[in-house]
Amino acid sequence: MAVYTEVSDDDLAAFVAAYDIGDVVSFKGIAEGVENSNYLLATTKARFILTLYEKRVDKGDLPFFLGLMEHLAERGITCPLPVKARDGEALRTLCGRPAAVVTFLDGVSVKKPTPAHCAELGRALGQLHAAGEGFSIRRPNALSVSGWRPLADAAKGRSDVVQSGLDAEIAAELDVLERAFAKLDLPAGVIHADLFPNNVLFLGDRLSGLIDFYFACDDAYAYDVAVCLNSWCFEPDQSFNVTKGRALLEAYHAARPLSDAEIDALPTLARGSAIRFLLTRLVDWLDTPAGALVKKLDPLEYFRKLRFHQQAGSAADYGWRG
Amino acid sequence: MAVYTEVSDDDLAAFVAAYDIGDVVSFKGIAEGVENSNYLLATTKARFILTLYEKRVDKGDLPFFLGLMEHLAERGITCPLPVKARDGEALRTLCGRPAAVVTFLDGVSVKKPTPAHCAELGRALGQLHAAGEGFSIRRPNALSVSGWRPLADAAKGRSDVVQSGLDAEIAAELDVLERAFAKLDLPAGVIHADLFPNNVLFLGDRLSGLIDFYFACDDAYAYDVAVCLNSWCFEPDQSFNVTKGRALLEAYHAARPLSDAEIDALPTLARGSAIRFLLTRLVDWLDTPAGALVKKLDPLEYFRKLRFHQQAGSAADYGWRG
Repeated sequence: MAVYTEVSDDDLAAFVAAYDIGDVVSFKGIAEGVENSNYLLATTKARFILTLYEKRVDKGDLPFFLGLMEHLAERGITCPLPVKARDGEALRTLCGRPAAVVTFLDGVSVKKPTPAHCAELGRALGQLHAAGEGFSIRRPNALSVSGWRPLADAAKGRSDVVQSGLDAEIAAELDVLERAFAKLDLPAGVIHADLFPNNVLFLGDRLSGLIDFYFACDDAYAYDVAVCLNSWCFEPDQSFNVTKGRALLEAYHAARPLSDAEIDALPTLARGSAIRFLLTRLVDWLDTPAGALVKKLDPLEYFRKLRFHQQAGSAADYGWRG
Repeated sequence: MAVYTEVSDDDLAAFVAAYDIGDVVSFKGIAEGVENSNYLLATTKARFILTLYEKRVDKGDLPFFLGLMEHLAERGITCPLPVKARDGEALRTLCGRPAAVVTFLDGVSVKKPTPAHCAELGRALGQLHAAGEGFSIRRPNALSVSGWRPLADAAKGRSDVVQSGLDAEIAAELDVLERAFAKLDLPAGVIHADLFPNNVLFLGDRLSGLIDFYFACDDAYAYDVAVCLNSWCFEPDQSFNVTKGRALLEAYHAARPLSDAEIDALPTLARGSAIRFLLTRLVDWLDTPAGALVKKLDPLEYFRKLRFHQQAGSAADYGWRG
């Protein structure tokens, strides 16, 4: 939630004049995305999201993100489509920052997904993975297994304020996961990597859009499935809802069939995904000053999810019936 | 800039169902207003602003604010119109907070108003004052002369970090203003009291909306004019632009004629308005913790404006030609 850069009406008018998108009729900073400044821009032609990329985003990654959204949208995925200016460029500059205009998607995020929502999400995720094939730019997942130890080191010695003994638990889990991930050899390609409910829009029970591709990268497709099992299928009391898991997995499988190796790897991938969000939330928790208006996400939510995955024997524990 | 209360899709759907405004198609928290949570709500019928009133707003004032907007909108002022639910009530409850839906207004705030913008603003302010007549609810201006001394006391002993000697300057100015204001007897009624450029929307050079009525109150009409002289007619280097002042005053006068007493009082009212914003900004500046994401407004901007008004001999110094 943030607008870091204020855009004056004059700067906006000059920026929009480079596009063939009509004249500005409304411009509101929106509380969306923690990394960038986002505005809802309405013109005489349509509504758009205008994003100014702030410091935390690596400029070198922007051609990947914008190119990926264009690649996916052209293949029928309902994601924001970067709009090109008259000169053919989608990546431009505004107020000294890289900036882009993308199409606006209707829909509302669901706070408590139903099994029907999970099925829609699974189908859309399978379609996303299939549609990503052929995209030419590569971006390794900096928050996959090799990135977890440095995050753990950043929190080391401080995480006991969150929960006693957490350092040791994390270290032990990383020992297990580093070995387990080294043995995996799974189909890989473009993944969203952050497809939480707040990044998926619905109109009623129908999925209307996938947004926020700024963690997208190359990694195992099934890892993306595991991220979604973690973020869509647990109840508020941290129990796992197998009906939702099954709905997600079966709908995904119908859109992009899961291999036996991917199915076997689900518990490991779910553990990996849980530690990834545990670690990033933990570091944010420890590094965010008290009183800052940024919403801090509870790292222990993912510690409890990790506990579930550590006990999972196979994909059946997520509802998979094979 | 703020969204303090997160509204879930379920809570939103239940809330919207009480209205005859169609189904939700989009819902975005917007970075507008520092006191409340504001959402841009698009439905199958139209766009609206949904506001949840947070702690800093006195619930007892809400019938005044909502009633005033309805009163003004019915008289042709382009301000947000509170939308009544099917039960006839505009003030409802959402997530345990008072909440209201108002119509959305197109337009963009101008950062550097031109004389043409100032004329539009002056005309709209005169129309606003005329349209407010007959509104039955009263709300005294808590930030008028009797409210300044308590603000000064809240900053006393701390304001030297902002500028050396500021405490003494403020105390001396309040001595002058308290005497001068006691002698004023000016036409009074409903004023906006915070009609800065960010609360006025334009489509090109045409004024398209007045927003944010949450400082509106009863006070001298000409005090509202003085607030606008302060916020619209100074250049970034703090010089006063008499062309803009003249445009504002003449357009106002054409919409609601200024009496001789009002014109004579302008320098005093401008000083009062300058000290009001100096004081509230100063207290916010001193009370806001470093690192908080709230944008702190410079109190010294209004100290420099106050200096100009202290030298002003008459309304002619603001461009008035009588």
